[in-house]
Amino acid sequence: MPIILVTNDDGYRSEGITVLADALRPLGEVTIVAPVEEASAIGHALTLRRPLRLEAVREGVYAVDGTPTDCVNMAVTQIFKGLPDLVVSGINKGWNLGDDVTYSGTVAGALEGALLGVPAIAVSLAATRKVYDFSFAAQAAASLAAAMFRRPLPAWTFLNVNLPKGKPKGFRVTVQAKRNHITSIAERHDPKGRPYYWIEEGQDDWTPHDRSDYQAVRDGYVSVTPLHPDLTAHHALSAVEELTAENSLSIIG
Amino acid sequence: MPIILVTNDDGYRSEGITVLADALRPLGEVTIVAPVEEASAIGHALTLRRPLRLEAVREGVYAVDGTPTDCVNMAVTQIFKGLPDLVVSGINKGWNLGDDVTYSGTVAGALEGALLGVPAIAVSLAATRKVYDFSFAAQAAASLAAAMFRRPLPAWTFLNVNLPKGKPKGFRVTVQAKRNHITSIAERHDPKGRPYYWIEEGQDDWTPHDRSDYQAVRDGYVSVTPLHPDLTAHHALSAVEELTAENSLSIIG
Repeated sequence: MPIILVTNDDGYRSEGITVLADALRPLGEVTIVAPVEEASAIGHALTLRRPLRLEAVREGVYAVDGTPTDCVNMAVTQIFKGLPDLVVSGINKGWNLGDDVTYSGTVAGALEGALLGVPAIAVSLAATRKVYDFSFAAQAAASLAAAMFRRPLPAWTFLNVNLPKGKPKGFRVTVQAKRNHITSIAERHDPKGRPYYWIEEGQDDWTPHDRSDYQAVRDGYVSVTPLHPDLTAHHALSAVEELTAENSLSIIG
Repeated sequence: MPIILVTNDDGYRSEGITVLADALRPLGEVTIVAPVEEASAIGHALTLRRPLRLEAVREGVYAVDGTPTDCVNMAVTQIFKGLPDLVVSGINKGWNLGDDVTYSGTVAGALEGALLGVPAIAVSLAATRKVYDFSFAAQAAASLAAAMFRRPLPAWTFLNVNLPKGKPKGFRVTVQAKRNHITSIAERHDPKGRPYYWIEEGQDDWTPHDRSDYQAVRDGYVSVTPLHPDLTAHHALSAVEELTAENSLSIIG
């Protein structure tokens, strides 16, 4: 039986992770290792400045007082004492599309799997009229997981899966969209009149792209994007060569 | 005068950010907006679950009780009320090479600049015999910043700059290395005998690559890697097409 690690950034008590684990159980031995508390937008953070606690909640369910990335590492070293065969992270309440994948704790859980050389999937969905229906997302994840066991993806890659609102029309393989970032921060005042600030959700302003993850979910498809942890901008290498050529001596002059 | 935002993940009091700001001052109007406390390995985290405070420490220096990503957003919305012309993040104590860029708060500060469409540089260096000499790193950053004002890089890209130990031999344009991740966690016990866990630094085991950032600093060069926030694994798209083709109906069956 394959060993399947399930994690998320919403915490081990969330409905999304329970539905996901249930859907994956026919495929292997499923263990949940997830944060104690919600850790959204935590990115690929590792907890290095304080120690972590590991709580065995019940058979097959563990809680870590840290990030999704911490959870994967705790699972590998303390629970499995080795690598699982698959890491699945989610189901996140809310899409992780475009550049937002760089902020996402859900995506980071799968990314950590990929860094360790383990096949991985991150799964997210949007609410339909403020209600989250996890069933299609769980089905999609299980279906893709089964397929990945039969046809492994290239090493160090993982899948970022986003479900559309309502019943999906099928899968669409996509690339990461480009969001036009406009930061919005709300200023408020405490009872003593001192200001404090809330970072607000980004605006929905996207660069149009037929094959983007954003377009797929807008069109009613499950978006499946292969991601990897290599941020190298290969298309900018020659421009940087020119930049450094004219400066090659200034640093050692 | 160009507006230059300087941030980091070690906090506004750190020596590295002070030396960096001083080196950039001849190029423009420099403002430091940095975390109150050290936020290493915080990744690209945004603080969404609590409000932030902004403290004007002294002329041109602000502290935010959040992450480097928070700092960039606070600077843009509350201090500049618009975009700066350049974001420089660092100087970090310790390299940010290979996949480790995905954990780095220093890199995240520059990444946030790039997401907002602002040219950006992250600067990191290693200690030489436990001493950090920030001078070459500050010079390298200023030299590259000046060059970027003359020759802008492609949109949404930024530079990840790592200094070698000792005096650099020059610049080398590089790609992100692949580190072979082996997680190491130390188990200890509290006075009541209950276990707790410390995540330890990763091992230095790298896939050899002549043009990698890791190889450049090992060879004594300043590594300059163009990065971008697009994690799409284009080389895996066809494999995922095959994967989903055989599963296209199972999700809606």
